[in-house]
Order: sequence, then C-alpha cells, then structure tokens
Amino acid sequence: MTVAAGALSGAERVLDRCEQLGRITSLDGALERTYLSAEHASANAVVGEWMREAGLEVRQDAAGNLLGRREGRAPGLPALVLGSHLDTVTDAGKYDGMLGVLLGIEVADRLRADGAELPFALEVVGFSDEEGTRFGNALSGSRAFAGQWDESRYDLVDRKGMSLREAAVQFGLDPDGFGAAGRRPEELIGYLEAHIEQGPQLEDQDRPLAVVSSIAAARRLALTVTGRAGHAGGTPYDRRRDALVGAAEIVVEIERICRAGGTIGTVGRIRAFPGGVNVVPGVARFSLDLRAASDEERDRAWDQIDAVAREVCERRGLTWSVDEFYRADAVHCDPDFMTAISAGVTAVDPGNEAPVLWSRAGHDGMAVAAIAPVAMLFVRCGNEGVSHSPEETVRADDVAVALDAFEHAVRAVAASRR
Amino acid sequence: MTVAAGALSGAERVLDRCEQLGRITSLDGALERTYLSAEHASANAVVGEWMREAGLEVRQDAAGNLLGRREGRAPGLPALVLGSHLDTVTDAGKYDGMLGVLLGIEVADRLRADGAELPFALEVVGFSDEEGTRFGNALSGSRAFAGQWDESRYDLVDRKGMSLREAAVQFGLDPDGFGAAGRRPEELIGYLEAHIEQGPQLEDQDRPLAVVSSIAAARRLALTVTGRAGHAGGTPYDRRRDALVGAAEIVVEIERICRAGGTIGTVGRIRAFPGGVNVVPGVARFSLDLRAASDEERDRAWDQIDAVAREVCERRGLTWSVDEFYRADAVHCDPDFMTAISAGVTAVDPGNEAPVLWSRAGHDGMAVAAIAPVAMLFVRCGNEGVSHSPEETVRADDVAVALDAFEHAVRAVAASRR
Repeated sequence: MTVAAGALSGAERVLDRCEQLGRITSLDGALERTYLSAEHASANAVVGEWMREAGLEVRQDAAGNLLGRREGRAPGLPALVLGSHLDTVTDAGKYDGMLGVLLGIEVADRLRADGAELPFALEVVGFSDEEGTRFGNALSGSRAFAGQWDESRYDLVDRKGMSLREAAVQFGLDPDGFGAAGRRPEELIGYLEAHIEQGPQLEDQDRPLAVVSSIAAARRLALTVTGRAGHAGGTPYDRRRDALVGAAEIVVEIERICRAGGTIGTVGRIRAFPGGVNVVPGVARFSLDLRAASDEERDRAWDQIDAVAREVCERRGLTWSVDEFYRADAVHCDPDFMTAISAGVTAVDPGNEAPVLWSRAGHDGMAVAAIAPVAMLFVRCGNEGVSHSPEETVRADDVAVALDAFEHAVRAVAASRR
Repeated sequence: MTVAAGALSGAERVLDRCEQLGRITSLDGALERTYLSAEHASANAVVGEWMREAGLEVRQDAAGNLLGRREGRAPGLPALVLGSHLDTVTDAGKYDGMLGVLLGIEVADRLRADGAELPFALEVVGFSDEEGTRFGNALSGSRAFAGQWDESRYDLVDRKGMSLREAAVQFGLDPDGFGAAGRRPEELIGYLEAHIEQGPQLEDQDRPLAVVSSIAAARRLALTVTGRAGHAGGTPYDRRRDALVGAAEIVVEIERICRAGGTIGTVGRIRAFPGGVNVVPGVARFSLDLRAASDEERDRAWDQIDAVAREVCERRGLTWSVDEFYRADAVHCDPDFMTAISAGVTAVDPGNEAPVLWSRAGHDGMAVAAIAPVAMLFVRCGNEGVSHSPEETVRADDVAVALDAFEHAVRAVAASRR
C-alpha cells in the first residue's frame, strides 16, 4: 500500500492515483499509454494491486483487460460491472478513462468496508484499449469483453510496423485467444461507467454531475472531390475543375447544415493534390466526423450534406466519392440504470433535477451494450471541457460528490433487485 | 554532327533535338534535369556542340548558363540574345524551355548560312535554372546573367541536403564566383525568347503563334488562419473557433474575387492542424498564387481578398496572418521588339492580326529585363495547353512557322538598326 488507509479521503485517494497513473507513460514529459505496451502491463499491475486492497479478486483477461471481482451474497451471481479504460491518447490528460476505473475501485472498497451483501457480484474493469491510439481501431478491450472480438484486428499494425498479434505475444497473451475474453449476457446485469464530460456543458450550467441519456451516433467518412489538375498560370477559370474550391464550398455547407440540425460535423483533415503552390488541385480529400444524439438525426444530416455536395460537384464538373470507414449507432442508456444514477446525482445535490446530457464522445459502454444494459455518470471537467490534452482537469470536490453519487447509484441498483 | 545537314528541315531538327534532350534525365521513365546536376552538364555539352555546328562560339558562364555567340558586322558589338532555359521540372515535358533554345540555335544557323551581316552580335543562351526544381528558388541562371545574383542562394539546400555551393563545386564552377556571370546593360541590345504558351488560348483561337505583351505580375503568399483546436465531440458550435471552416470560406471568396477581376488566384495547398479526424482544427494553412497582367490588377485583387479574409476571421473569432514569400512585378515587353515579333507572326500567317497574350507563367525574361529590353514569341501547345507534364505537345507545323517567324523577327530588329 502506497497510502495508509484513512490518511486520505476516498476522493483524495482517487486523485492521488490519477497522478500515479499519469506517470506511467511511454513519453518524456507527456502521457501516452497504449494497448499491449510495457506501460499497459505496468498500469495493470499497479491498478490490480489497488483492486486487491479494495477486496477484489483480480485477473487479466485474454484481451488484456483488468478485472477485479467481489462475489455478492451468493457466489457466482451475475455481475454489475463498474469501470472505464486505462489506456490513453498521445499527450493525454490524467482523467479520461482512469477516473472511472478508480471511482469504481473506491465504490467497491466502500461497499466492502460497509460489509454490504449485494444481490449481484460486483466487478470493476479497466478496459485495455478504448482509444485505439496504437493500432488505430478503438474499443478493442471492450469489444473483446462483449464477445465481439474481430479476428481481423490481429493484423492491425502500429507505427513501427508491429502487428497486434506480435504485440500480444510480447505482452504475454495468447495471440489467437482474445475471443476468450468474451462474457456471456447471463453473466452480467449491467455496466455503469463514470467519466469526465469532455465538454463544457456542466461547467456552463455550474453543475458537477450529469446522467447520460445516450452515447453519440457517429459516422466517419473519407470524402474525395476529383477535378483536374492544371497549371496555375496556364488554366483559365472557364477551364478549371478545381477540386479544392469545390471541397471548400462543401466544408462551409457542412457547418451550415449540421448547425441547423443539432448534429455536430467536424472536418479535421484536408489535403489538396498534387499540392504544388502553382498547381490547380485535381483532387481534394477531407474527413468528416458526424455525431448526433440519435441515428436518425445523424443520417438526416449526412443525407443533406451528400445532396449539397453532389450539387456543388455537378455545377463545377467535379466528381464526389464517399468512403465511410466508421459507423456507430447511438447507444441509449438503460432507463432503470439512468434512474439509479439520477438518484445518486440528486442525493449529492438535493433539490435540483439531475442534468441529462448525451455523450458526444464514444465510450466502452458502446461495446458493452451488445451484451448488457449500460449507463453513465458524467463528471464536470474544467477549462471549457478540454480533454485529450494535459490541460484536462477535474475539481477535487466534484470527484468527492461523484464518488458519493456513484456509490449511491450502485446501492440503488441493489435495492431495486432485492 | 548527329544529323547530316539537309537531311532534316530546321523544324524537324528542332523536334529531333527536343527528343534527344528529353533523354538526358535523372529519372527512370520520366524527365527531370536540374541545376548543377550531371544531366545539366550533359545537356550543356550536347547543346554546346549544336551551337558550334551553327557557327557560334561557345562558353559556359560562371553560373552554368550555356552561351553561343557570333559577332556582328564588327567584333564586340552589343548582342541580341535569343534563348530560353535547359533545366526542367520533375516529370517534365520536352518543350518548356528547350524549344526556345533550339529555335534560337536554328535561327543563328540560318543567318550564318545566309551570310547575314548583322548590326549586332547574336548570342544564343540556354539558361541553367529557370524552374528552381532542385533548390526551390527559380531563375537562378537568368538572375546571375542579369547581374542580380543573390549571394544567399549559395546556401540553398536540395532534398538530399546538398547546398548549392557544394553542388557548384561538384559541377566544376567557382562556388564564390557566380556574380561573374553578370552582363552589363551596354553589352546587350535585348533578349527575345520563344516559348510554348503553356495555356489553351492559341489552341482555342486556332492560331499557331502569339506576341507576348507582358509577363505576369505575381505574388505568392502563405496564409494562416488560427482559431482554437477542440474535440469534435466536446466542442459545441457556439464555442468553436474552427480555423478550417474559416479558411474554406476564404478559399471560396478568392475564386469569386479573382474571377470577377481578371486576376488568376490559385490555392494549391491546404492543411488543417492538428489534423485529427475527430479534432476541430485550431490552425489552417494554405497557399495563394496570384497572377495578373499588371501589378495594379494583381494588388487590387489581393487587397480585396485580404479585406474579405479579415471580415471572415473577425466574424468567426479567428486570426489571419499573411506571409508573402514571392513577388514579381509584371515585365512589360518592349514595344519595338513586340513590333518585330508581330511582323514575324504576320509574315507566316498573312492577312491575320498577330494575337497578343500576356504570359500567365514566369520566364527568364523577367530576370533579363533588369538589364535589357525583352520580348517573347508564344508557340501553341496541344492538350489544352498542358505543360510541366509528359503530355506537353507541340505540332511540327507550328514549330516550322515559329522558326520562320522568329527568324523574321530577328531580321526585323536588324533592319530597324541599320
């Protein structure tokens, strides 16, 4: 034990542990902890020790997820799973993911200390790869946990050319056995995740916590406008089929359409080819990330964007091509679990309705929803909600009420199942 | 002599020599011949031999330009210089530059064969570096010739990290002596260059040749829009300061403004930073290439673009910054030389006015204009004017009339000076 029991409050201990995890990094002066790395192994070892201190029986599953379990009032009952992920983006903050795992451990510790006899087993999970930082494909850990492991992921390759399969061997996992991490629906009663909001809305509303209604419906598309390259000097306007000016018109339209429709559309990448200062671009490629509270809103926005883009390309003698490389349908949180979390939020902030937000970001719950009902508790973060950055912050008093609310929610779930 | 005199017509010989030069390349299956390379030395040797066959006295100057001279009716008279450049872009065509040098040699050969006694010396020049392909800075050869050698060019570095100074040593030049290539204004009476149009206008007008009125006024700018990066999910629209959407609006406006004002504006490069699919761009950088027939038109277009960009940035909470990295004022061709070239064009196409075009592309004449009057003859090229590409073409019959017209122009200059 690095900190004597009782020396710190639960919230202080959570924050102290966030600091400790923040030092397990592959980079000098910045935080990065990726799937199947040496730092992944270190984090699992350290967090596993904290789980043991909280009275949990610890194991690492076949996909590198870390699991701690305490049986309920009888052994072998289906489990309520609390948790989040232990991996990070590059140059990450210290709270995205980690905070949720540590709050789960703290809740387990409180319930153990209290001698609570629960009508379910309690599990705390630290998922191994939510961000997809190393191999580019997110939710590897939770997809495996949910029995959705896709064998093609073994062939994903990191920046250095190492495949996920090779990394698995180096990490000490069976490189053909990730499927064994899959849980059966009957083993679980549900999944509750606490997570920083990663947005400014709670800060704006001056509230510490919120209940999540759904996790964003998302689509990511690689879009290509093709015209004809030509020389800046030698190609008069009436002969130009400038792919970039067409793409620029579409980028402006994307903002207009999404803004009007309540969807969020982000063009984060753009390139013109061949890319000479004095060459009319023959090809422009850009990305589009679409997020909405429901599949319908997301798809309506895309249909409008696609129609406008076709119109722009038609008018300019360009061609339009679309490659969707990611799609996630909205995951709607379980109403009963939302009620339990809402009760927790109200308990620490009496007299106020619990704020309800939809999560613009993806979370492990999207994967777990394939086999169990899920719900989430959002914790306010500072600096206008900045995340995936060292500037990510949480307030100590918010962590304290988050811990109380999360414990309250678990007890509410238990009470509803007696 | 590789071709027996009389075996080919002058135009056929020019085209045959374009083919031969097209094989002096540093690339497999594509043409690239850059400044101070082994291929530059080979081309100078081969073309120097052709110059000698045309009765010219050949030397390579201190900046690697190839010069052939025949004295006029008295030795040491100021020279009329005919020529263009022998270097190429990467994956070049066979006519840009080379055609003008070879036409100059052929004209010199005709005048020698004819025993013409000229009131000036005749020089043919093959400039060594018009394109700037290797060291990034164009017009090195003609700037040195015009006494405008800039000592800082010695420190330019190629893709492999070799400086121009080191390349000069390897090539056999005095790496501190390029300034010695400079000619004094009193040594020259003017510079005439024949060049492919590098545009579709003669093809559109169904005419083989044109007189050039001016060489484009140009500005090249690196433009930066700065906002604030944020997460696609976590940053609602009212908090976004999306640099790319601002830049896209400006790109669309650039087209509108230039199109309306007779200027040509090209955005050939664009990047968004940090460049994550799921990150609102905090910075967008793009290039702008502006060309117009006069400095006034060019600058008026830029002032309008700059004003609109400031307005867009103001409205969106963005900042706008401008870095001009290249500026060339328009070079107006000499009226007397234009009259001589016009007479040549009319002589081969009787009864038709000579078309007059402004050159959208830069040429060595821009540099030479610092010390002598200049003028240009444009030759139609095919494929809608494609240039800087293996698809560059000229018609054999156009080369034949270009040769006649160019000879006629030189004789007209001579006649006006008797």
